[in-house]
Amino acid sequence: MLKVKLLKYTPDPDRLVAAAARLCYSPVGIDQILEQISLEKVQQLLNLIKESGHESPIEHVSFSFGVEGISRALSHQLVRHRIASFSQQSQRYVKLENFDVVIPPSIQNKPEVANKFAEALDKIGNIYQEMLKAGIPPEDARFILPNACETKIIITMNARSLLHFFEIRTCARAQWEIRRLALEMRKQVKEIAPLIFALSGPTCETLGYCREGKMSCGRAPSLADLMRNYQKSSN
Amino acid sequence: MLKVKLLKYTPDPDRLVAAAARLCYSPVGIDQILEQISLEKVQQLLNLIKESGHESPIEHVSFSFGVEGISRALSHQLVRHRIASFSQQSQRYVKLENFDVVIPPSIQNKPEVANKFAEALDKIGNIYQEMLKAGIPPEDARFILPNACETKIIITMNARSLLHFFEIRTCARAQWEIRRLALEMRKQVKEIAPLIFALSGPTCETLGYCREGKMSCGRAPSLADLMRNYQKSSN
Amino acid sequence: MLKVKLLKYTPDPDRLVAAAARLCYSPVGIDQILEQISLEKVQQLLNLIKESGHESPIEHVSFSFGVEGISRALSHQLVRHRIASFSQQSQRYVKLENFDVVIPPSIQNKPEVANKFAEALDKIGNIYQEMLKAGIPPEDARFILPNACETKIIITMNARSLLHFFEIRTCARAQWEIRRLALEMRKQVKEIAPLIFALSGPTCETLGYCREGKMSCGRAPSLADLMRNYQKSSN
Amino acid sequence: MLKVKLLKYTPDPDRLVAAAARLCYSPVGIDQILEQISLEKVQQLLNLIKESGHESPIEHVSFSFGVEGISRALSHQLVRHRIASFSQQSQRYVKLENFDVVIPPSIQNKPEVANKFAEALDKIGNIYQEMLKAGIPPEDARFILPNACETKIIITMNARSLLHFFEIRTCARAQWEIRRLALEMRKQVKEIAPLIFALSGPTCETLGYCREGKMSCGRAPSLADLMRNYQKSSN
Repeated sequence: MLKVKLLKYTPDPDRLVAAAARLCYSPVGIDQILEQISLEKVQQLLNLIKESGHESPIEHVSFSFGVEGISRALSHQLVRHRIASFSQQSQRYVKLENFDVVIPPSIQNKPEVANKFAEALDKIGNIYQEMLKAGIPPEDARFILPNACETKIIITMNARSLLHFFEIRTCARAQWEIRRLALEMRKQVKEIAPLIFALSGPTCETLGYCREGKMSCGRAPSLADLMRNYQKSSN
Repeated sequence: MLKVKLLKYTPDPDRLVAAAARLCYSPVGIDQILEQISLEKVQQLLNLIKESGHESPIEHVSFSFGVEGISRALSHQLVRHRIASFSQQSQRYVKLENFDVVIPPSIQNKPEVANKFAEALDKIGNIYQEMLKAGIPPEDARFILPNACETKIIITMNARSLLHFFEIRTCARAQWEIRRLALEMRKQVKEIAPLIFALSGPTCETLGYCREGKMSCGRAPSLADLMRNYQKSSN
Repeated sequence: MLKVKLLKYTPDPDRLVAAAARLCYSPVGIDQILEQISLEKVQQLLNLIKESGHESPIEHVSFSFGVEGISRALSHQLVRHRIASFSQQSQRYVKLENFDVVIPPSIQNKPEVANKFAEALDKIGNIYQEMLKAGIPPEDARFILPNACETKIIITMNARSLLHFFEIRTCARAQWEIRRLALEMRKQVKEIAPLIFALSGPTCETLGYCREGKMSCGRAPSLADLMRNYQKSSN
Repeated sequence: MLKVKLLKYTPDPDRLVAAAARLCYSPVGIDQILEQISLEKVQQLLNLIKESGHESPIEHVSFSFGVEGISRALSHQLVRHRIASFSQQSQRYVKLENFDVVIPPSIQNKPEVANKFAEALDKIGNIYQEMLKAGIPPEDARFILPNACETKIIITMNARSLLHFFEIRTCARAQWEIRRLALEMRKQVKEIAPLIFALSGPTCETLGYCREGKMSCGRAPSLADLMRNYQKSSN
């Protein structure tokens, strides 16, 4: 079972980001920087950041999530995000007594396949235990463990990196498991930083067009579609 | 006047870092990860991180400082730190009515030099204003502004990056202005995260030897000194 | 005088990037990966990367430039790019005998202003030398040196980071000096990696629309313009 | 079978790094920067970099490796290195007809265990194929694939990041598979950049003492050992 818990985050994130943006463009002092900024001004500054694409102030706030119930397939993909910090439960040091697994819906939905999958997992579990008993170190015995194996991880990303993560991982084209994780993470940060994450998600939602080219799900026009239309109407 | 204000930071930083370290090496669940961790355990885990050099859990917490009263000479050096986020007051967009300056102690201490320095700054201020009046855009008029010019900046670093910053910038060999800034930042984070920053500073303080080679201030032995001694005593 | 020299770069960059992209999606071996890839295939793979936005293969090649004749105003802005490596001539260690300066065209074009600017630079040069003679260390004497001061720097960026650099810094809205540098760097890498850099520059050139919002130079429609048109024509 | 092939690299790496270091500390022009630098001077500058710990010039050169015959267990660990670029064969898009596997020596050395391991792999292979035939998409069928599965990857790192990689991954305490990879990569870059990589490896080889604390293999004294000795002899 996927569990996502927002453990800690920079307090008052919308306001801090807005204050940082304001500092760049006006002669404001450090003492007043957080105090004299109305909610309206915060909103206005965040709009400016989005519109102009000068996103660096969004980096000043970060969010730490505890996550469990994800597969090692997902975690391998997840840790490719480099502007992030991860602490993951080690299969090298932690012996897995009864390892939990993630089963893809496409398998769960076909009982016959699901049965064989479960059977195979049982055999894998047995041979893993046997290898440990035969004196194989956990770091080598784990070579038999499947991608389906559950892992636990703490993820910290700043808001700019999160916005990028949400852009590509909440897209309908993303792999189902990482998408499920990204949607849950987004839900939780939106409650804490509604202005920063107001517009977050795939480009069809944030920009209005799809960037996936031939891979598009078709929900939104491509940029080429938009351009063609514009040129037609300009003639 | 240097002003440093710790604006925001990840709450309860010592505990979060310890929890992240523990997750890597033990089968703990996400729900209990922050609750069931005693202060003693936190200290023990932070010691383990320092001893083993596996420092990645320290990245999960970050600190945002508002800084003013530093020179552009310092800020140019400061922004070379790449694992950090900066929002700096722009000389391109912000016209400087009466720009403040930072005067190095070595100049302040020689009244004659200090007078000439002040005089030169006056002339520079006049020509900057004249150029603005003559229609030169601020982004070009600032070409006459000196390194001494005061700037304001918001700095966010995670604790691992801060430890590195303190290591090289609180060293007696560091440039005086960035050292003063680093010492002040360190003082403030030590109050918030005493365990993470317990051992922080130049290697003479944290490791016991000096890494500066020929540039050493001589306060601590070099690694070569230590090795020579060890080999002698082993014979 | 701006001087930009492409010192070294990963050989055969277009081909290496294409090979990396192909590896992700097909069961090709490492031995053949660079050999069996026709120019046509290279082009096709690079198109796919651009279309899909999966840009990470572009990171495998990097370019090192030697640059001189740029101002410290520019270098301060330049080193804010964090996915890059810089080695810059130090004002802390290198005494500037006769420092060169960069003079903005807007100043050069107004002889009266230009004269005062030159005069001020002379005075600054004199007091800098006087301070050195009075025993002020170079790292403190430089506090009087202006942003106009020339600096030398070696810049290394991978191609993905360069594409981003070109996107924002060759835009008509960028500051004139960094734009001039970016245009020159782009010219030189285009000769070496014509396919990677075929489409590079501001979004008006690469995507067809302008991202600068209210700051737009007006050369291209905004995304909002495109969307409005599309919705109109869809009705 | 592990295969490592140095595909491409910045040409003349020792010289470029030395030139970058020299630029920082002396008033040299860009035109002569690479030409007027003798091999002796290169060596001297590289020694200075190592001694002073000011390692940023080492970043200007990078190395791209094609790697095959490594397990997904290794690749998951490998991609945690964030100052690096990776292009990895996707299990999501590439169906594995007859997947190759990596078998740990500790398993190979126990024939009975090795037989069971091979048997389990056969079963896993069968069910993977069955799932594909039953219409399960490859991205879900791969949930049954083991960590032992072979993967192919292109790795690019700059020399500074490589030195760090070699420091922690060629240590006797590192996991055997990533250590084997690191040793092979090091062997290949040492032929190309003998001066940069002259001193590279675990701290027992480069600094003379061990950093692994309680985990030490005992080959070299700890820093605490060195300090104790020094203090004793100073009395």
